[in-house]
Parts: sequence; structure tokens; C-alpha cells
Amino acid sequence: MTSERQSGQLLTGPVLVVGAGLLGTSIGLALRRRGIEVLLRDVSPQNLTIATGVGAGRDADDPSVGSTDIQLVVVAVPPDHLAQEIARALVGTTAAVTDVGSVKGSPVRAVADLVSDGELRRYVGSHPMAGSERSGPFAASPALFDGRPWAVTPHPTSDESAADLVGDLVRTCGALPVTLTPEEHDAAVARTSHLPHLLAALAAGRLTLGPPEHLALSGQGIRDVTRIAAGDPALWQQIIAANADAVSELLEAVRGDIDVLLDAVRSGRRDGVRALLARGVEGTAAIPGKHGGPTEPMAALYVAVPDHPGELARLLADAGDIGVNVEDLRIDHDPGRPVGLVELTVAAERAVFLQEALERRGWTTHR
Amino acid sequence: MTSERQSGQLLTGPVLVVGAGLLGTSIGLALRRRGIEVLLRDVSPQNLTIATGVGAGRDADDPSVGSTDIQLVVVAVPPDHLAQEIARALVGTTAAVTDVGSVKGSPVRAVADLVSDGELRRYVGSHPMAGSERSGPFAASPALFDGRPWAVTPHPTSDESAADLVGDLVRTCGALPVTLTPEEHDAAVARTSHLPHLLAALAAGRLTLGPPEHLALSGQGIRDVTRIAAGDPALWQQIIAANADAVSELLEAVRGDIDVLLDAVRSGRRDGVRALLARGVEGTAAIPGKHGGPTEPMAALYVAVPDHPGELARLLADAGDIGVNVEDLRIDHDPGRPVGLVELTVAAERAVFLQEALERRGWTTHR
Repeated sequence: MTSERQSGQLLTGPVLVVGAGLLGTSIGLALRRRGIEVLLRDVSPQNLTIATGVGAGRDADDPSVGSTDIQLVVVAVPPDHLAQEIARALVGTTAAVTDVGSVKGSPVRAVADLVSDGELRRYVGSHPMAGSERSGPFAASPALFDGRPWAVTPHPTSDESAADLVGDLVRTCGALPVTLTPEEHDAAVARTSHLPHLLAALAAGRLTLGPPEHLALSGQGIRDVTRIAAGDPALWQQIIAANADAVSELLEAVRGDIDVLLDAVRSGRRDGVRALLARGVEGTAAIPGKHGGPTEPMAALYVAVPDHPGELARLLADAGDIGVNVEDLRIDHDPGRPVGLVELTVAAERAVFLQEALERRGWTTHR
Repeated sequence: MTSERQSGQLLTGPVLVVGAGLLGTSIGLALRRRGIEVLLRDVSPQNLTIATGVGAGRDADDPSVGSTDIQLVVVAVPPDHLAQEIARALVGTTAAVTDVGSVKGSPVRAVADLVSDGELRRYVGSHPMAGSERSGPFAASPALFDGRPWAVTPHPTSDESAADLVGDLVRTCGALPVTLTPEEHDAAVARTSHLPHLLAALAAGRLTLGPPEHLALSGQGIRDVTRIAAGDPALWQQIIAANADAVSELLEAVRGDIDVLLDAVRSGRRDGVRALLARGVEGTAAIPGKHGGPTEPMAALYVAVPDHPGELARLLADAGDIGVNVEDLRIDHDPGRPVGLVELTVAAERAVFLQEALERRGWTTHR
């Protein structure tokens, strides 16, 4: 992995992780696998017990730890407590400080009011693009960040050495640093994460307002669109509040789109509808492909798979024997299906080869 | 399969399928596997050649076919041509007629203007909840409808015998009939399909309007939300236009939601944001579970899987050996990930057992 080649130059530890939830515990686990000393702190004794128990580090307040010169503090607390905890980590210490919050502009402004200019230099925000609908230290994994983008957001007075150290943290955790200003970051995630979350929540919310029996017609599309809307409202309201400016700008733009769409639908002007749909197609194509490289042409192959243990394994074992790498796999989940339809995504140039080889092994396929 | 027990009572054929695209060809294939005679018609000679070539039926206009008493006509043409083709199938014949269009109210009203009251009785609309981002006869499969809901939408003067025959078509194709009025159907799909499609298109469209480098922060969420927005705008504009009333009513409601959200975000009233997010969570839980039955509690198990042929197969072979049925599987697809994170969905009561057994076989897992 790239992290093994590129990391470990600067970050030697100890690292103090404040907040032993999903992200903090995962960072602890990722650093421990590289042998870096990690100390953990959390207001919840239960989180701390779990995080230390799974091997993410030692309790920072355990008497056996003694005094140590912390090299880097990683603040991994909910958005509402970020500024206060970042400031606490900066004041009267020499450590570099980062955080892993979902919004970067408002915390740095709030921290600036709480610390001296000299202390503020040691702070460089960051944000790993990794997570889960699950939360808490039980959901943590040392592999959570492997290969993920992880934004690093120095502010205008950040020390270069602190930014370099945070970049090294990112690589040591197996992720890929993407440097942006705090403002650029917030504009980017408003578009790629916060707005989609809100629109998914609105689509999902409308399902509760019609006759329940109508939901018998739910297909895979509505399931995909609304999946992220299952995320914790308590956390998401904090994220939205912390990025209120960028989010409201986009919401206003979408309200404008809906006005255009409504007008076009009502008046039967189809070109207006088509233009918005075509822009959507363009947007789906603009999302970067796997491994961050140029998008390789992919093709879907559908295979009927009986719905009991071992059949999916047999299919993928066959695909493995055939030597074609399955880039993505989706199990069709419509109600009442006794035979699952599995969609395999493979390199377009390998799809016909795989299809023919699977058919020869007795699978029912279509493209 | 249920269809083998319940079908074949009424539908004996021949069936004429008008329109040999994805749905028409798939219906032909599904009927042929039960030995029912299928005749095909399409304005595109190429579609017809492919559909007859893959075994979906015979060319209805081939001289060798001769005259036959068609029992049922299935109209599977784009929305704009539905009414005209349904009317053509009714006038001067004795066949029952159905269609598989995505909208049911406006076609029956248009057909009523084109045929006599007596002819209209033989028409019963229908709509299989199955499809693909792909289109055309090459994408067809006899298994496309297996276990899917398929709406059957008799109008007030439909003959009961015609409705029964269409119900038998649905079961013969392996699907589950769901009877609704045309108006109920259109309200249901506006909510479960058309509105989500439009919101996905708006979220995706916004990606084209920011700096392209910001898309480096795209995660799995935006990919899921926008997947269906890749669908063909030419087809979708017809669907939206045909269901304009129900769609614009929902769009207006969503505009109202956005006003509430905007006001709450701007004024920092978080309860307003939280309420809409909480309603979204409720909506995701309201979507019926697999097999249409009561939703069994499920749990996610995450496993790190090296990204090369055979590894995913080995994982699922292990899960199969362990005897736990994988209900869903998702491969995490963020850019640059050298090790894939695979999310297995299993019955909640089996998750710990599976996790421990996989760990014993050397897999890195987390929950």
C-alpha cells in the first residue's frame, strides 16, 4: 500500500486521540498497526473501555501512562464540541492539532477566538471521507481509511510543519491527502455530501406521507436514493448547522431548479424537464472512478442466483476461476424474489468473455 | 416458484407483444420458457431481428405465421405511443390488451377517446416494477420479472376476465400481481419512483456546477443517491410528462419542504432541520423488506477484501461454509482503495457468529 512506502517519515507519536467514537477509534487502530503510541480520551467511560479494549490505544488518564510529550492531538468529537476541544488541545502545549470534523470553516473561526495567534499556527483541520451508518467504537476498523480521500485544510497562518505532520497522519492511516482551504472544503462537501443527504431525506420523508400500501411498488431505485437518509439526525443536524452558508446556497439553487422543473412539468414544456435530466446524467459521469484514476469503461452482467447460502459464493468462485475481476456487485432486493438477480460490474472488454464462460458453467445470465 | 404453481390456468396464447425492447423481449422470453406461443412486432427491424434471434417469439408479420387468434396483446412501446398502439390492438379484434407503461391514468383516458366502450372493456393496464439502466432487446432476460411486484390496473369498465388474464400473464412471467386503480398506481410511482428520480437528477446535476476538483471528495453516499439519475432522459421526460399531475403535486410539496429547511438552516433553528431528517429516517424504514414479508432485523458486517480476482469469492465461499446466508452485499467503491471494504448484510442474530467464524479464517472484519 502507498501508505507503507510514503508514511512514517514525520509522525512518530505519541498521538492523543480525543473522542473514541467510530473515527477516533479507527484512527487509533490504524496508528497502532504501525506501532505508533496512541493515547485515548473520551467523556464516555464506556467508549473508552471499548476503544482501549479493541487495541486502539491506552487511556490517556491512566496513572501508568505518566507524562508524555504528545506530538499530535487528533480531535474526533461531534461538531458542536469541536472548537472547544481543539482550543483545549492547543493552549499551553506544544503539540500539533488536527480534527476530523465534517465541516472546516466555522471551527477554525471559532478556535481563533479562543487561542493566541501563536497557538492557532499549530492547528490544521482535516476530514477523512470515510464513515458508516453505524457509529461508536464497536464499528471502528483499522482499514476504515484505506485508499480513501482525506481532506487536509490548512488555514492562512497554519505552520507548514503542522500541515506536513497531518499529511503524514493521513498516509499512515492508509488514506490519500487532498489539500484544500477550509472554505473550498466546505463548498465541496456541501455539494458532494450535505445536499445529497438532505435530498435523500426529503425523498425518503415523502414515503411516510402517502398510503403505506403504495410502497409495495418500491424498487431498487428508491432504496439506493434513500440509503444515506438513514443516518443519525442528531449528528447530521450539527453538520448542516456548521456548514449553513454553503448548504443554504445550494438549497436555494435547488429550489430554483424545482421551480423550473415545476413550471416545465405543468406547462408540458418537455425540453425544460429533459435539460435537467440531461444535466443529471452528466453529473453521474463526473464522479471520479475507482482508484481515483480515469474511469475505465465498465459493463454490467446480470446473473440469476438462488437465494440460499453458498450460491453467491459459487458464482464468484466461478468468476474468480474464469479470471475476471468483479469491480462491483449488487444484489437486487425487490420484495418476494425467490431467485436473486445479481449485477456484476466488470471491465467492459471482459464482460462478453465472462458471460459466455458463466453460461458454460450453467448460470443464467443477461446483459 | 409461485408462478409454476399458480400460472398457466388462463393464459394459453398466442400472445402478441408489440414493441421488442427490454420489457417486450423479456416478456417474450418469459412466456416462451413456459411454452406459450409469442408473436412479436416492432417498428425497428433491428429490434425484431434481435428479439426473434434470442428466442423471444416469432415475427408476427412473417408469412409463415399465418392468421392466428391472438388471446392477449402486450403493448410495450414508449409512453408517447402507448394510447395509439393500445387502441390499434383493441379495434376490430377480440383479444384482451394490456400494456407495460410506467404511467397508467393518462393512457386509459386517451384510449377511451379512440375506441368504443365495448372495446375499452378488453383493456387492463399493467406495470412491472423491473427494468435496468440498460435498454433494448439485448438487455432482455426471461428472469427480469421473477419475484418482482407487477401492478395490474383495471379501469372502472374493464372486463373481469381481461383482468384475470393479465394477472395470469404476470404470474406466468414469475412476478407478483399488485392490483391498484390507475390513479392509485400513478400516485404511488410518483412517490416511489418519479420524485426520487428527479431529486437524484438535481443532486447529480449540481455536481456539474462546481469546481471539478471538488469531486475528489465524493464518497459512496453521492454515488448511491445519483445512480438512477444516469437513466435515459428521452424516456424519463415522457414518463414525467405522462404523470405530470401527481409529479407536480409532489414537487410542490418538496419545494415547501425546502422552504422550511432553508428557513431553519439560515436562522439556526435546528429542530426544523432535525424534524425533516428524522422523517427521512422513518421513510427509509417504511420501504418493505425482502420477499415482501415483515422486515427481519438485519446487521452489517464489514470485511476487508484485497482487490483482485477470487478474493471476494473466497470470502463468500467461507460465509457459505459457515452456513450464514448473505442477504445483501455492497463493495465500497471510493477512489484509490487498494483493499475493498465489503459490507455483508446478514440476519442480525447471525452476525456475531459469522464475524467470529470469519476472523478465525483470517479475515479482518468490523461491525
